Amino acid sequence: MIRQLYDRDSYTYTYLLVCDKTGQAALIDPVKDNVTQYVQLLKELNLKLVYALDTHIHADHITALSVLRKATGCSTLVSSQGKVNCASGGLTNNACLTIGLLSLRAIYTPGHTDDSYSFYLQEGANGYLFTGDTLLIRGTGRTDFQNGSASDLYESLHNKLLQYPDNTIVYPAHDYNGFTQSTIFEEKYFNPRVKIKDKGAFIQFMAELNLPKPKHIEIAVPANQQCGELDV
Amino acid sequence: MIRQLYDRDSYTYTYLLVCDKTGQAALIDPVKDNVTQYVQLLKELNLKLVYALDTHIHADHITALSVLRKATGCSTLVSSQGKVNCASGGLTNNACLTIGLLSLRAIYTPGHTDDSYSFYLQEGANGYLFTGDTLLIRGTGRTDFQNGSASDLYESLHNKLLQYPDNTIVYPAHDYNGFTQSTIFEEKYFNPRVKIKDKGAFIQFMAELNLPKPKHIEIAVPANQQCGELDV
Repeated sequence: MIRQLYDRDSYTYTYLLVCDKTGQAALIDPVKDNVTQYVQLLKELNLKLVYALDTHIHADHITALSVLRKATGCSTLVSSQGKVNCASGGLTNNACLTIGLLSLRAIYTPGHTDDSYSFYLQEGANGYLFTGDTLLIRGTGRTDFQNGSASDLYESLHNKLLQYPDNTIVYPAHDYNGFTQSTIFEEKYFNPRVKIKDKGAFIQFMAELNLPKPKHIEIAVPANQQCGELDV
Repeated sequence: MIRQLYDRDSYTYTYLLVCDKTGQAALIDPVKDNVTQYVQLLKELNLKLVYALDTHIHADHITALSVLRKATGCSTLVSSQGKVNCASGGLTNNACLTIGLLSLRAIYTPGHTDDSYSFYLQEGANGYLFTGDTLLIRGTGRTDFQNGSASDLYESLHNKLLQYPDNTIVYPAHDYNGFTQSTIFEEKYFNPRVKIKDKGAFIQFMAELNLPKPKHIEIAVPANQQCGELDV
């Protein structure tokens, strides 16, 4: 079972993944402000949180990893590329995480940041990609901070995420336009950034975005480098 | 396939229901401001919209029913109890709507308003209840306007919606706390209003809420009584 949760302040989607047979669960991209909600929901559904995971060091909200580890005893995993040593362990490309009878695969997808991961879950005939800020619905994450690279993002999109079957459900870390999910098919054919097939043209497009600096980056990044432990 | 869409201004969830085999589709509680998004998504997914439905005359946003009927030729259905004559037809209790090979059942669930409906969809082993404002996640709609009735709401909840199997997915018309879906099990045991088992106590609880008037009610209700046709 997958339960999507929404943080209205940062437009962040958090995902609760549940093995229905064992009651083991994982949270992807939990937000510190919403820990009370997560803990209550875990209790109500009688779940044991085994993992709290971040797709990357976020710049727009503070992660709940550290608080969840203290509250539930779960393992926390963050990108091993992010040189962060506050978590239980580091994600590596193709690492397989066991949540009861579910297997969650970590996929290193740098570009938005140099520590970005996506996750893939297969449940019966259905495949789900949790794409973080690498692939958004009809968009992508930006590449102009935290060692972002439009060249890496192009490779992560075309050589990794878009190689999954067309009917794979896409669950991003954010949406700003009222979408909650998509599919690889839709993003392959209707995502304006994905449709830029020439790598040079994509790099130029990303370089010319000229986006304003994220509001909370100066607070969020140092806090998240400590798994949200830092009081702010 | 069910696709949840979100209107950030009014915290409204709109649902796109798709028969994957035929490409026929329905929209529940579409928002007028988002028509361009709906029409583009229908086109991208190569869907034929056969129905646009409202769970009730909304007080917080303007319905897209009339615009969608003009743009797509779909049928529009609203509660027959609402005495609204702008739609293609009126919903009646237990009416069965055909969307390709899917059957959507209309359930008259008055209480939030006297014209409130819910919808039930069975897809294989999975059941889905689209509960409008009758049953919200860990809450309910209010009952203090549009001929609302706490007594009727109590009956709609306990004698209709909560009679569905525990594993039925609950998809409400709104959420204000970051939830996107629930189950009948969760609402039966963890919804504070549902847990008030005594009908008199429930009526008293609802009477004492003293909520502020919805911001857009004076614009939205008359517009929605014309299926969103009225220019505002």
